Amino acid sequence: MEKVNLTNWVVSAKLPEPGLHDNTADSDRIINFFRKKYKIRLNINLQLLKIIPSKIRELSYHIKCVILKDNESYILTDIRDPNDQAFGVATDLGTTRVVFRLINLETHDELNEISFDNPQIQIGPDILERIHYANNNEGLSKINKLIIDGFNENLEILINPFDDIKMEDILFMTVAGNTAMTHLFLSIDPSNIIREPYIPVVNTPGLFSSEELSIDINKNGRIYVFPNIGSYFGGDLISGIIYSQMNKKDNPSILVDVGTNAEVVLGNKDWLIACAGAAGPALEGGVSKMGMMAGPGVIDSVKIDPSNLEFHIHTIEEKTPKGICGSGLIDLAAQLFLSGLVDIRGKFVIEKSPEKFKQNNGITALVLVPKSDSAIGEDLVITQIDLDSLIRSKAAMYTILVTISSSVALDLNDFENFFIAGTFGSFIRAESAISIGMIPDISIEKYKSLGNSSLGGATLVLKSPILFDEINEIRNSITYIELNVNQEFMNSFSGAKFLPHTNPDLFPSVKKKLGL
Amino acid sequence: MEKVNLTNWVVSAKLPEPGLHDNTADSDRIINFFRKKYKIRLNINLQLLKIIPSKIRELSYHIKCVILKDNESYILTDIRDPNDQAFGVATDLGTTRVVFRLINLETHDELNEISFDNPQIQIGPDILERIHYANNNEGLSKINKLIIDGFNENLEILINPFDDIKMEDILFMTVAGNTAMTHLFLSIDPSNIIREPYIPVVNTPGLFSSEELSIDINKNGRIYVFPNIGSYFGGDLISGIIYSQMNKKDNPSILVDVGTNAEVVLGNKDWLIACAGAAGPALEGGVSKMGMMAGPGVIDSVKIDPSNLEFHIHTIEEKTPKGICGSGLIDLAAQLFLSGLVDIRGKFVIEKSPEKFKQNNGITALVLVPKSDSAIGEDLVITQIDLDSLIRSKAAMYTILVTISSSVALDLNDFENFFIAGTFGSFIRAESAISIGMIPDISIEKYKSLGNSSLGGATLVLKSPILFDEINEIRNSITYIELNVNQEFMNSFSGAKFLPHTNPDLFPSVKKKLGL
Repeated sequence: MEKVNLTNWVVSAKLPEPGLHDNTADSDRIINFFRKKYKIRLNINLQLLKIIPSKIRELSYHIKCVILKDNESYILTDIRDPNDQAFGVATDLGTTRVVFRLINLETHDELNEISFDNPQIQIGPDILERIHYANNNEGLSKINKLIIDGFNENLEILINPFDDIKMEDILFMTVAGNTAMTHLFLSIDPSNIIREPYIPVVNTPGLFSSEELSIDINKNGRIYVFPNIGSYFGGDLISGIIYSQMNKKDNPSILVDVGTNAEVVLGNKDWLIACAGAAGPALEGGVSKMGMMAGPGVIDSVKIDPSNLEFHIHTIEEKTPKGICGSGLIDLAAQLFLSGLVDIRGKFVIEKSPEKFKQNNGITALVLVPKSDSAIGEDLVITQIDLDSLIRSKAAMYTILVTISSSVALDLNDFENFFIAGTFGSFIRAESAISIGMIPDISIEKYKSLGNSSLGGATLVLKSPILFDEINEIRNSITYIELNVNQEFMNSFSGAKFLPHTNPDLFPSVKKKLGL
Repeated sequence: MEKVNLTNWVVSAKLPEPGLHDNTADSDRIINFFRKKYKIRLNINLQLLKIIPSKIRELSYHIKCVILKDNESYILTDIRDPNDQAFGVATDLGTTRVVFRLINLETHDELNEISFDNPQIQIGPDILERIHYANNNEGLSKINKLIIDGFNENLEILINPFDDIKMEDILFMTVAGNTAMTHLFLSIDPSNIIREPYIPVVNTPGLFSSEELSIDINKNGRIYVFPNIGSYFGGDLISGIIYSQMNKKDNPSILVDVGTNAEVVLGNKDWLIACAGAAGPALEGGVSKMGMMAGPGVIDSVKIDPSNLEFHIHTIEEKTPKGICGSGLIDLAAQLFLSGLVDIRGKFVIEKSPEKFKQNNGITALVLVPKSDSAIGEDLVITQIDLDSLIRSKAAMYTILVTISSSVALDLNDFENFFIAGTFGSFIRAESAISIGMIPDISIEKYKSLGNSSLGGATLVLKSPILFDEINEIRNSITYIELNVNQEFMNSFSGAKFLPHTNPDLFPSVKKKLGL
């Protein structure tokens, strides 16, 4: 078959009118149009067959078609009046937050974006608790209903500002989430994901009808669920690869999604490898008592004046400080280290500025914001324990990066791009992360923050029919490697637990800053 | 992709068991098995994804799969215990009668066959009345419910003799019917079929889920509806072509389905052409007052002793005569003509045996069975009007055959096989039909009665996965030609209104019988 040339999911079609010399069936009239013009074989379901004869005559054979694709098959999803618009919703289905983005499927305008807490949080904040809860049919169907209801309520909120957009005008949703969230969204038993040998039920969920998932969009609408590679490498990452376009570049790139797990992808247009490793919760701001997600009043940047060790703190929306997020914590650690308030082992150097520290139950704590200036009625502090935890996390991250790169005989300098994905990644300052040795000391321009790349990839699929094939290619070609946590890995990890590293030559820019 | 080698819809699969070195997803484990062994890409729907994890573990990875195909895609339809059987039902969806045949999908044993009146008869015996009734949504949904309810009630009757077969054990149904019956079965508006320019809604309905058609078989079961070529060439005929295998032979064959319409197909493995023309209801036994479908007490054969003009009448099951069926009528006409009781114009020759005739309101009638010997309390008669009608029908049939053959420059003698399809066709005696000039005077061995070829083709699809492709090939390659009812056709028709023909040289065997 010739090359498909469909470039938009919405297609206006002026069908030839029937006559005694053209008594093609109504549905074939549509199918033939798409075969001739776009080289695709369209499937039409029973619901649409029922409305086609009156619809195409009422519209005088001038129709707007919404097309989608399921594996090898193209599907006629709706027939609309030429003046009716069709909309899509891209979804980042996070364990913690869900983000919706509303798109005009035809013009590709991005109309609105909202986010909401994943309602499954009420079962448990982390994936493990939710999977245990879903261990039986009743639990599974309850936890599934939470997310489905959450979708339906928030889809209404998403379109609410637009008088002329109704739920039935949403024809297509894309959903990128990790493997467990994907299973729970589909109400598929996730229990083997966390049991040895860690088997998901499905890796390529594909396209579902809105009705079978009970999503209240157009009843002929479809929901595309991104494929995953395995239990620990989800559709959100595949979506991120698509968004980064690393799979189309000649030179190798590296993509890191920083969260509780560090998920890493290396490769270019010819090959892709991936791995995931526990990096620890510190990097998501979940570690210290005052650690939190980014939000108003949260400290997102810290500077320490080296001349007088004065702290310059910035909060989001410049509200009274109430906590610190991951990127703020990395800034803080980098500044503490560069100013000598923390040593290369990551320990507080109290004698350098004793008034900044206090002891709580034998644990040293740095007072970042005194009670009088904080929004929480007490000092905002970072303890030695918080710092130790951050250092374990950064060491894990660096070790994972070194290990996977060397597994394909590449040096960290060999990568053209170093993509940092995830909401957290969009706040991180590479310079600070380099200073503590969390990420390699390569040219700062190579670091590219992708923002919410899971949402980004999900949005691209709404805009381009060719991406389904690209996603399938990625899924089929990517090699997932298990991180081999052997003695070599542990040795490397030990070296990385120093600031920036036991071997400072690996971090020349930091060495320079320290005047070494 | 390599050649698909699936030879049965039911496949036993021993899946490799998962382990730390094989953490393939459950569904991919099944998909990979079929990709490797049968070179097919299997799709698995959400309902099955939900049961797969527990089912495959419970069965220790030794499963029986029912596979079906929809256009380019193969579909996993059910996962069964290795000891569970799976059944299919082939359906001839006739305007008047519906026939079900129960098949073991794995062994291909034919277990039962039943038939029942199409319940839509209560709306109207013929297609036109039903289409008019279905002209609005309420009418369409009522008439659709009649046939769906009829299916569900009779499927129960079909499996009733078998204690170990339940409705949920039926996984696959095939349905072959004409274009209008197909539309009504799918609850799709048929009204444009009978309105110029005669446009069906759908020509390739394909596979439907039992749930969307409300058929009470297994909820993952599928119903395949045969494609049609146009408003007047239905899936029953495509099924007949498949059953005749004319599409695989080197030499051309001709296939005729004799009913109210005569549907004719010519061709071989390289080409197929088809046409349909009104042949008149006479041939179905629907013409005369005493005409009826075959059944006990119905006259199905008539011999007239040329020496004494004595009638030898045979009835089905040798019951007291109550009417005559189409094949009996053709026998009768042939015998009347050969014995001189009817002349070459088809008119009764009363003077030859005046005692056999009577006049009713000025119309001559031949008394076939006197009141005293009949089951209906009056004489069984054939009137001159009945005979005229039969002769118009036979003339139409012959003219259609000559016209379509000459359109491809073939003589009627060029065909290797002359297939006669339809229930009626299974009773017809070719010799009698030749004697009245209804069918060409070719070697009697070339005539092959296919019986219910619509049911036959529907049965074959239950037994062989390759037939879907063959059906699509037939549908895509067949050329449907409109019979051009021009002066030439009318001239030919006029000649064919004689017995056997104005040109007796076209019927040498009849000429010989007549001693000419």
